Amino acid sequence: MAIIKNKSPVLFFYNNSKKWLMNISKKESLHTHIGVLKHADAIGKEYGSRLMTNKDKYVYLLEPTMYDYIMKIQHGTQIVYPKDLGYIAARAGIQDGQKILEIGTGSGSMTSFVASIVKPRGHVYTFDVDEHFMKIAEKNIRRAGVSKYVTQTNLDLKTSKEIPVTEMDVALIDLGDPWVVLPKVRQMLKGSGCIFAICPTMNQLEKLTIALIENEFTDIESTEHIIRTIAAREGKTRHTFQGIGHTTYLCFARKAFFGRGTKAKATTKAKATTKAKATTKAKATTKAKATTKAKATTKAKATKKSTTN
Amino acid sequence: MAIIKNKSPVLFFYNNSKKWLMNISKKESLHTHIGVLKHADAIGKEYGSRLMTNKDKYVYLLEPTMYDYIMKIQHGTQIVYPKDLGYIAARAGIQDGQKILEIGTGSGSMTSFVASIVKPRGHVYTFDVDEHFMKIAEKNIRRAGVSKYVTQTNLDLKTSKEIPVTEMDVALIDLGDPWVVLPKVRQMLKGSGCIFAICPTMNQLEKLTIALIENEFTDIESTEHIIRTIAAREGKTRHTFQGIGHTTYLCFARKAFFGRGTKAKATTKAKATTKAKATTKAKATTKAKATTKAKATTKAKATKKSTTN
Amino acid sequence: MAIIKNKSPVLFFYNNSKKWLMNISKKESLHTHIGVLKHADAIGKEYGSRLMTNKDKYVYLLEPTMYDYIMKIQHGTQIVYPKDLGYIAARAGIQDGQKILEIGTGSGSMTSFVASIVKPRGHVYTFDVDEHFMKIAEKNIRRAGVSKYVTQTNLDLKTSKEIPVTEMDVALIDLGDPWVVLPKVRQMLKGSGCIFAICPTMNQLEKLTIALIENEFTDIESTEHIIRTIAAREGKTRHTFQGIGHTTYLCFARKAFFGRGTKAKATTKAKATTKAKATTKAKATTKAKATTKAKATTKAKATKKSTTN
Amino acid sequence: MAIIKNKSPVLFFYNNSKKWLMNISKKESLHTHIGVLKHADAIGKEYGSRLMTNKDKYVYLLEPTMYDYIMKIQHGTQIVYPKDLGYIAARAGIQDGQKILEIGTGSGSMTSFVASIVKPRGHVYTFDVDEHFMKIAEKNIRRAGVSKYVTQTNLDLKTSKEIPVTEMDVALIDLGDPWVVLPKVRQMLKGSGCIFAICPTMNQLEKLTIALIENEFTDIESTEHIIRTIAAREGKTRHTFQGIGHTTYLCFARKAFFGRGTKAKATTKAKATTKAKATTKAKATTKAKATTKAKATTKAKATKKSTTN
Repeated sequence: MAIIKNKSPVLFFYNNSKKWLMNISKKESLHTHIGVLKHADAIGKEYGSRLMTNKDKYVYLLEPTMYDYIMKIQHGTQIVYPKDLGYIAARAGIQDGQKILEIGTGSGSMTSFVASIVKPRGHVYTFDVDEHFMKIAEKNIRRAGVSKYVTQTNLDLKTSKEIPVTEMDVALIDLGDPWVVLPKVRQMLKGSGCIFAICPTMNQLEKLTIALIENEFTDIESTEHIIRTIAAREGKTRHTFQGIGHTTYLCFARKAFFGRGTKAKATTKAKATTKAKATTKAKATTKAKATTKAKATTKAKATKKSTTN
Repeated sequence: MAIIKNKSPVLFFYNNSKKWLMNISKKESLHTHIGVLKHADAIGKEYGSRLMTNKDKYVYLLEPTMYDYIMKIQHGTQIVYPKDLGYIAARAGIQDGQKILEIGTGSGSMTSFVASIVKPRGHVYTFDVDEHFMKIAEKNIRRAGVSKYVTQTNLDLKTSKEIPVTEMDVALIDLGDPWVVLPKVRQMLKGSGCIFAICPTMNQLEKLTIALIENEFTDIESTEHIIRTIAAREGKTRHTFQGIGHTTYLCFARKAFFGRGTKAKATTKAKATTKAKATTKAKATTKAKATTKAKATTKAKATKKSTTN
Repeated sequence: MAIIKNKSPVLFFYNNSKKWLMNISKKESLHTHIGVLKHADAIGKEYGSRLMTNKDKYVYLLEPTMYDYIMKIQHGTQIVYPKDLGYIAARAGIQDGQKILEIGTGSGSMTSFVASIVKPRGHVYTFDVDEHFMKIAEKNIRRAGVSKYVTQTNLDLKTSKEIPVTEMDVALIDLGDPWVVLPKVRQMLKGSGCIFAICPTMNQLEKLTIALIENEFTDIESTEHIIRTIAAREGKTRHTFQGIGHTTYLCFARKAFFGRGTKAKATTKAKATTKAKATTKAKATTKAKATTKAKATTKAKATKKSTTN
Repeated sequence: MAIIKNKSPVLFFYNNSKKWLMNISKKESLHTHIGVLKHADAIGKEYGSRLMTNKDKYVYLLEPTMYDYIMKIQHGTQIVYPKDLGYIAARAGIQDGQKILEIGTGSGSMTSFVASIVKPRGHVYTFDVDEHFMKIAEKNIRRAGVSKYVTQTNLDLKTSKEIPVTEMDVALIDLGDPWVVLPKVRQMLKGSGCIFAICPTMNQLEKLTIALIENEFTDIESTEHIIRTIAAREGKTRHTFQGIGHTTYLCFARKAFFGRGTKAKATTKAKATTKAKATTKAKATTKAKATTKAKATTKAKATKKSTTN
């Protein structure tokens, strides 16, 4: 039986839009529109108990879950919502023991969620370039209790030549231009490893999908996830009037080897294609690129022998 | 670098509707509409490699994830889909180390998914009454590699007086009449613990919600989850024509104590409310149940003074 | 070329959440958060022209469509939204020349919409019991320019014995308990005529569907309609963040004759069944009713010979 | 009371996926998987009556509505679905008396639907380039009973210099590249007139939206419409398992005059903006088109000084 003590984390829950996540501090009080509560009154209670504010409103003392940490995260950037996080975990089969690469730590919400699943034997390696956000993320990750399973690095994987980690089970990319890091992500991912990119726009899905094919990924799937809330009440059950229109689209894929199993000939395509593409893309999107690429690919096949994973 | 050996599990992947999950058996072949593959040809390849069938189709040799096990599960009953499983995990904050109660093992898909997250320090206690399904589930759970973290019991929690487990973090209910087991589930759940019920119909959501209030749960939320697939292609990106209409609704809640923390006053009230509701409702739809439950609850309160229920 | 004159109706359009519908009155001005416009400046302009407010914002002078009247209707009650109205028109095949029965005039938005389609040779007969709303509706219908094609009557069709109109092509019901008027609606509807009911809750859909079968309707269909807005912008197209969760469900059906074509035996069932049901329903929803109904139906078949509608 | 006669149109309705639309021909029979019906048996019955097949299945004799004609249309091309047609009618405020321009007749389903609403005083002017489809459309329009209100023309509005009609209330465009005809559509549309384009892909929405702004349209709105079917049944109401994923997106706008009403200042600006955009874009994706259009627009502006374009 879990009893609330001084310094215990508590979600003071009135309803889904009025809830406060904090650690009990015996001399403090919670001041809200629905009244005041003394932290001290929570001490000694079992989680799940409720207190009444001085305005006669019941507030429940809940034990915070990872969901609560994510929803209450201090975010300067857009968070990834639980409905999307859940699908990421389920579709990529994230589980205890896995090694996860994350590019774009943001506020650390996805980091924390994923770390809570892969712990204690797995680990999350997360990279960002913005020191300010990295500090916010660090705080959020610590608060969610998973710092031990996360390594944060200030490194720009778009430009760096380093390959800081390898044999990752899953790569999560939350960048505006995820296609840029694909060749690098390939090198860090194990064979058949999963990739998930957070893509708020359709244009990102489109560009990324093209790049995923060029970079030898398979099982490519773009999805969006709509959550609808239902007000279930006796004799008048219906969907709620409010609804979220859009959070983000998601793009999933698995690392394959187009050249393996059918001899050596195509093994270096990845490098060549990618390079060609990068150059071409700068100039234009459509016709020209296709032609150039075709050439580049052919040449690569003909001349290069060494392997890029 | 993970190399495929004899007996390795492999997902032979052609596309999302044509894929086969099996263990490599060096003398066997995979016979499909898109041609034949010899298992032996996969041995020694890295996961992610591809083979060509005798009909010139590429088939990828992927390392199965929990997603693949769930989607390929041998199911006599309806499975819970990844989009729904993911939300369950994210909303209830399921993570390593938790103890999970599952009522209604079904084919074992939810069992396997949840076990893969709570392992290695957590455990899933799952109950069912149908011996035939229990055997199917057992096989599926073993195949998914999580038997060690699951205890299957043939016990009818609707009628049994036993309280086989306590202090569960999360309870998952997949029964046609989830409200029947609520008083019992309360006794097995820790304070502030989460409950999730799989409710295919709106009527179930409605009945369950009423019962959750009567049984002192809070943060009650009914949702449905729509996944839409997007065909992202150069210059012609759109949603796919096919779509799933409905799998199930989900009902979430957290165990509270309406009578705790505000002394005698509130205790009386809780009882009174329950009784009042029970009486009114007795006339309408759920007579027998309401009456029985009212008694059970009252008795529990009378005799057990300091325990969790 | 349509030129704006004094007294012309104009939709002053800034954007979809800031727009004002009024008749030009040459001495007046429009005062808004985005600045002031003199009506006089609109006179002589072609519809579609724009004016600049004193805060340098462009406001377009649009010719109001029926959509604009509906969205700007003075509503004390819930309006039926264009997305739902459109489906009603398309599914029931509403067109010029039809006679429409409407029970529950509300604010007159559906009345106006339907009248604009059936005119000039069709007509809408609308009934309500609330004199206050009837006056609001009258004003809205007049403003939408379709008064000539609408007859408003203050009559309670739930209790009245009158059959004020017959041979209606389509019946639209916007009542909390649409099932109550079904036997009466049948008498007013032509054979094979269509019915549409506005049902905000799932429970209404369920009760109504049962009653529609009992009252010999076929092609019964319950639907809901979700409109999602897309922000199409160069290089960053995506759904809008905001979304409507729920307005109403819709229930459609067509009047059939279960007893026709298979001799006289079942012809009066409608009357008998309905009566039995009404009585029974008062008491309970489930078991009892089923039994009673079964009996009632059988008896009706055995004893009654005369025809209802 | 409408009685079925020889040659009457009848929808033989078994359920929503098994229904047959035909004219009664007294010597014919309807042969289906659910049995055989003699047309002669329908003669003399009231619409709404039912017949029993020789396999003991009831088939209802319904009076076809416009919905039935649309759903049963002989289509070589993709039809526009009622859910989308309904929104088009409601959002554009289509009603009796309006003049409608349609570019891309296709199978004539949208043509027929719209004609049924604008008749008897309105008219639909529809243009296509494919003679084969035009014949199919003609037949479908005739069958739907609205030929009198439709003028079909074989003319390529993308290339033609003709302005065959003017002062249209609404323009409906069902082309793969709707942006190409915008300058021309402007000339045919009245001030403040509405445009609706059928856009199956997100890329079309994006390109069209950019072109609509360049061509001085306002109130631009892109939407998609999801219809979900609900199986309403006693005690087990839920959405149906099947669902439609995607039919088309819709793009709406209203013709404005950016240069009108605020004198020379604004006129210059409009031109400038257009040109600037055209230049920039010329490099990227749509060179040829942008250039041509820029010219066309400029010329129109140069030569016609006081007309509507």
